[in-house]
Amino acid sequence: MRPVSIHTGAWRFPGAWPDANFSFPKLVQLIQTLERGKFDAFFMADHLALLNMPMEALRRSHTVTSFDPLTLLPALAAVTERIGLIATASTTYNDPYHVARKFASLDHISNGRAGWNLVTTANPDAAMNFGHDEHMAHGERYKRAREFYDVVTGLWDSFADDAFIRDVDSGIFWDPSRMHVLNHKGPELSVRGPLNVARPVQGWPVVVQAGSSEAGRQIAAETAEMIFAAGGLMEDSQAFYADVKGRAQKLGRNPEHIKILPGCLVVVDETVEKAQAKRALLDSLVHYDSAIGSLSIALGVDARGFDPDGPLPDIPETEASKSGRERAIRLARRENLTVRQLAQRLGGYAGAAIVGTPATIADTMQEWLEARACDGFNIMFPYVPGGLDDFVDMVVPELQRRGLFRTEYEGTTLREHLGLPRPANQFF
Amino acid sequence: MRPVSIHTGAWRFPGAWPDANFSFPKLVQLIQTLERGKFDAFFMADHLALLNMPMEALRRSHTVTSFDPLTLLPALAAVTERIGLIATASTTYNDPYHVARKFASLDHISNGRAGWNLVTTANPDAAMNFGHDEHMAHGERYKRAREFYDVVTGLWDSFADDAFIRDVDSGIFWDPSRMHVLNHKGPELSVRGPLNVARPVQGWPVVVQAGSSEAGRQIAAETAEMIFAAGGLMEDSQAFYADVKGRAQKLGRNPEHIKILPGCLVVVDETVEKAQAKRALLDSLVHYDSAIGSLSIALGVDARGFDPDGPLPDIPETEASKSGRERAIRLARRENLTVRQLAQRLGGYAGAAIVGTPATIADTMQEWLEARACDGFNIMFPYVPGGLDDFVDMVVPELQRRGLFRTEYEGTTLREHLGLPRPANQFF
Repeated sequence: MRPVSIHTGAWRFPGAWPDANFSFPKLVQLIQTLERGKFDAFFMADHLALLNMPMEALRRSHTVTSFDPLTLLPALAAVTERIGLIATASTTYNDPYHVARKFASLDHISNGRAGWNLVTTANPDAAMNFGHDEHMAHGERYKRAREFYDVVTGLWDSFADDAFIRDVDSGIFWDPSRMHVLNHKGPELSVRGPLNVARPVQGWPVVVQAGSSEAGRQIAAETAEMIFAAGGLMEDSQAFYADVKGRAQKLGRNPEHIKILPGCLVVVDETVEKAQAKRALLDSLVHYDSAIGSLSIALGVDARGFDPDGPLPDIPETEASKSGRERAIRLARRENLTVRQLAQRLGGYAGAAIVGTPATIADTMQEWLEARACDGFNIMFPYVPGGLDDFVDMVVPELQRRGLFRTEYEGTTLREHLGLPRPANQFF
Repeated sequence: MRPVSIHTGAWRFPGAWPDANFSFPKLVQLIQTLERGKFDAFFMADHLALLNMPMEALRRSHTVTSFDPLTLLPALAAVTERIGLIATASTTYNDPYHVARKFASLDHISNGRAGWNLVTTANPDAAMNFGHDEHMAHGERYKRAREFYDVVTGLWDSFADDAFIRDVDSGIFWDPSRMHVLNHKGPELSVRGPLNVARPVQGWPVVVQAGSSEAGRQIAAETAEMIFAAGGLMEDSQAFYADVKGRAQKLGRNPEHIKILPGCLVVVDETVEKAQAKRALLDSLVHYDSAIGSLSIALGVDARGFDPDGPLPDIPETEASKSGRERAIRLARRENLTVRQLAQRLGGYAGAAIVGTPATIADTMQEWLEARACDGFNIMFPYVPGGLDDFVDMVVPELQRRGLFRTEYEGTTLREHLGLPRPANQFF
């Protein structure tokens, strides 16, 4: 969810809720639908600044603003029973004591359903909201992130699971010998501890990551239990999957304890043609003035002079990223898109999508799972509530019929949903 | 609430919940009782470290750990309709962008019920959890706090109330001309903005403070809309009330727009004797080993050699705070307390208390209100759930009968409950 759909035209779709971003009752309905569909978790991406899009696109997008996820998720915890709750928190623009404490609190409040999406924050505009003139360099961000992870997990282990005795007769509330003072002093961080929250229900909330760079893959192999991966070509996902799990295995970790989930937008309808028409309608709601900006950026040329209703003309090599340009050209040729359609596709949502019937969607998912390209999917919905309802009412039953997805939650915690072990306390 | 009662013996009281601190379902029941009693708000004090008590007292106290309030309050917002939700956030150990965003999010999620207790953090142990060897000096903390307030309120005004148009037909989601970029560059803080959350429902969440020092009174006069004051002697409270409201008036503020609420523990029963016995039972649950430490600190002498069941011996002048020593001695003489009873009183909760029947409690409150010693009270309960239930079932109806308290919420926001105006946006 980002915050309710990643597609910038979603809020204009017939039947969509234009104000769902800032409507708590509507967000409640959405997560309750996800829980009815037995989803592992609700996840909302986050940004510590306005998105850095051109203003022409920004003012037309509902993705511009959203609730702080660590404020939204506790509220959603109170209206759900089983679904996991994953929030993003930046290691670059936070103190580890706050991060440890908030996720520990969320884990208690939700009875073991919290997950922490550890990010280093890629948006350089965030730096200026946190007192820095310049964004921290990539390598330095990852160095801090690794140490930050050690501090946060160390703070979660401040108390043994049995430290709080609460013996009314003797008057002993807790046992100081079952408390560990971290006393961390590292190159980036200095944190004494202990955390002033009992050990989380899950031991540690589930640690999630999304980095794909060399440094991102390495920290994920060392620490992540779930990875939000990029979707796209199956070969690329297979290579990523093998690489990260191989790195984890070399480090002595069980590769089964890292779940890799590519993101994909899923558009479903009764026939493939209807589903494609729904996607086309959704894309058509992206305003041409902002869409053509996205296309110009992707191609590295000013596309405003092109005939919107003609085919994409030949594009010379430019300074723009080669892969982005080639992807756009390939997409236009493959689906025979006009300039307008191509621009609206890129301006709406340019990432991976599965468009089809419940059966064809389940076929694709099954193929990916069996090919060891992923362990599951990070599903994005074309619009809400309809696009989400359709997924739960049409795709989930098909996956259940094939035995690919649960028909009931087996456990109560996010770790149990994902088949992840509860970490032992490193100090007790 | 700190976190469920300020009294360190509360968790041992017959019928109390020893585990209420970390039991979300129990906290839900407590806040729903407060809402049934038409309370303005739920407030839980906060600390960014273990409390700095001697370990002998610490291990016997349920006040040692608690949820992060900005994680707890959104969850409580989801299970209530009207009651305000006030969380503490430190200006010393936070970034203003996070604070602005979290309170703005809470205000949206709760439909206008958020309040920010702005504190500079007095506990020096907190510094060591946030990368500092030493606690920031008092003057510097208040200088930063004042600038922090300007930044947070500036960020809340990032968008005009009408900035989000969401016009499906034209495709305009929001109007950039109704956005203000703060561009704050001050001595302590540098924050660009804008905030990525729509303006809060209340314009600004209600700003609460609790400082009583010279710097604390001045910043409260400049910025606070509600003050948690110390209870105690009525003359002291009258002087504080007149001082802070006078300062505000000199600054051009309406003194009615600062509500001053002394804290007091209220113990009620059908007769004064029964109420006193309840208080005595509560105090008796404070273990003597930790209670005698509290008495020794208050007196500035080692009291462990005193006869626990005898009267307080004469105490020589010491290095300890004169006011604390004299207060302890006065209390022992006035209520004819043994050493044990005095120690348990101070180790349980040494602050202001009203102990009596619904009628005598209402008399005291009425007297304080009419004497312009306060605008209301920050009520603390001796234990939960019983002590809270008793207040709502016995004291609230008496206050209502006298016309001193509402019988129904008149509005929906915390500002409306308190009779505070909604601030205009300073940029639009």
